[in-house]
Amino acid sequence: MLQLETESLSHRMSETTNTAVMVIGGAEDKVHGRLILSTFFSRAGGTDARIAIVPSASREPSVIGERYTTIFEEMGAKAIEVLDVRDRDHAEDEDWLQFVDDCTGVFLTGGDQLRLCGLLVDTPLMERIRQRAQLGEITLAGTSAGAAVMGHHMIAGGGSGESPNRSLVDLTAGLNIIPDIIVDQHFHNRNRMARLMSAIASYPDRLGIGIDEDTCALFEANNTFQALGKGTITVIDAKDVSHTNQPDAGTSDPLSIHNLRVHILCHGDRYDYDRRLILSQRSHDGEHSRMRD
Amino acid sequence: MLQLETESLSHRMSETTNTAVMVIGGAEDKVHGRLILSTFFSRAGGTDARIAIVPSASREPSVIGERYTTIFEEMGAKAIEVLDVRDRDHAEDEDWLQFVDDCTGVFLTGGDQLRLCGLLVDTPLMERIRQRAQLGEITLAGTSAGAAVMGHHMIAGGGSGESPNRSLVDLTAGLNIIPDIIVDQHFHNRNRMARLMSAIASYPDRLGIGIDEDTCALFEANNTFQALGKGTITVIDAKDVSHTNQPDAGTSDPLSIHNLRVHILCHGDRYDYDRRLILSQRSHDGEHSRMRD
Repeated sequence: MLQLETESLSHRMSETTNTAVMVIGGAEDKVHGRLILSTFFSRAGGTDARIAIVPSASREPSVIGERYTTIFEEMGAKAIEVLDVRDRDHAEDEDWLQFVDDCTGVFLTGGDQLRLCGLLVDTPLMERIRQRAQLGEITLAGTSAGAAVMGHHMIAGGGSGESPNRSLVDLTAGLNIIPDIIVDQHFHNRNRMARLMSAIASYPDRLGIGIDEDTCALFEANNTFQALGKGTITVIDAKDVSHTNQPDAGTSDPLSIHNLRVHILCHGDRYDYDRRLILSQRSHDGEHSRMRD
Repeated sequence: MLQLETESLSHRMSETTNTAVMVIGGAEDKVHGRLILSTFFSRAGGTDARIAIVPSASREPSVIGERYTTIFEEMGAKAIEVLDVRDRDHAEDEDWLQFVDDCTGVFLTGGDQLRLCGLLVDTPLMERIRQRAQLGEITLAGTSAGAAVMGHHMIAGGGSGESPNRSLVDLTAGLNIIPDIIVDQHFHNRNRMARLMSAIASYPDRLGIGIDEDTCALFEANNTFQALGKGTITVIDAKDVSHTNQPDAGTSDPLSIHNLRVHILCHGDRYDYDRRLILSQRSHDGEHSRMRD
């Protein structure tokens, strides 16, 4: 079923669609260049954009909702609605469902990813957002907690400053927008390599994607994403792993993982997460070139 | 010349020698199991051990020298001498040179690796220690700063919490015991993945070895090391790297590095750093098995 959803995302999004799923590592520039937020605005239709802001991850939803409203107003969005879901019943609100049916972009703010999932998972509102995003009908962006929820598996929390080990990461169900990936955010900023590696050791068929602050993995049609922004995206690919030890879940015994493939991607790099290969990247002098895998 | 030194380490150390070069990630257990320090003691000859302690990395050399003296006395070393080099002239002291000629083990303490190198590099004392270690005549151990100095290139310092970039790491000359490696210590504990990756991006022919606290890479004959202790050793192998961008040194432009091979090794894993492959590991149930690369 997850596979079907993946295929629907890849096959049913038209080659020419301008929509995307934007997975943002948190702390995106909101003041100066606003590269990532401007890209979301543009991919959502620019001055024709009808944008739904979902601030439900935050414990101050009205404050953060207002903040993003101001930004997209300044950019010139045609319509903006804050879907301030504070109770699962709110996620059945007919006016909000109507807005989602007509919107061109949805933005999930930061906060607590467990709170966001608890309020939205399997609700009519979230199901419509997920389906429209997977069909390529809208551009869906999530930052920080809003990024963490994108996979079928979600990192709910965990530790840092320890050797990779099973107890370092708490995994639960995400919102399943892009089932095949496990996302971590504020990545190098908050020392999260060990916890993402620990997550991938438990689910080696998934692709680990660690996104730095003010950086975005922009997912488009055909199972590709490109790196956008000031930092890096760390791709952890366990496809070639030849050995992983299997201490009991929850123990802090250190992990042993052999033959991980790791890519550090920066602005302009593009990756095919279905075929697990890098398609091209912009070199420091701005040239493009096709790379061998 | 570095190559010759590498060969001398690998070819001239006899298969049967019990000596080793022990690269310790810092904060090794000094109180309870003392696994790493006991291994050093044993590899240095046990109750026949004549141990030189070099505390010169520390700003409190007498305190730290005393601490390790007590530990090795408790273990029953035959002779212990603290080579408290505080001035490069001290590194020509005839009594100390004589002790080094007759010793079976040398222990480099933690502190500041720049201070350690500044006091010892190219001195008669350090040259004898290096030559005897590379000939397999003694067991040489270094912890924290004492581990950082082991390669030809040394990480003198750097930042953390940023995306991998050239300005994140300060590289200088180490003591060149094992030329081919670039060591980082307190590795996952202090969020150093990005800086070691940045170092390897600058010197992709070197092997990055990130060692966690209370963990040791124990280098033996034939260019192999085994992981020992409570944490993990992260091996960063750029052999298959297909692309690295080259922003100017010192800039904070994020790096792009494609197709790094990364291994997380835990206690019992063994790695051939000449052929760049994992030889075997102890699985969680204690079995040994030969792994494919």
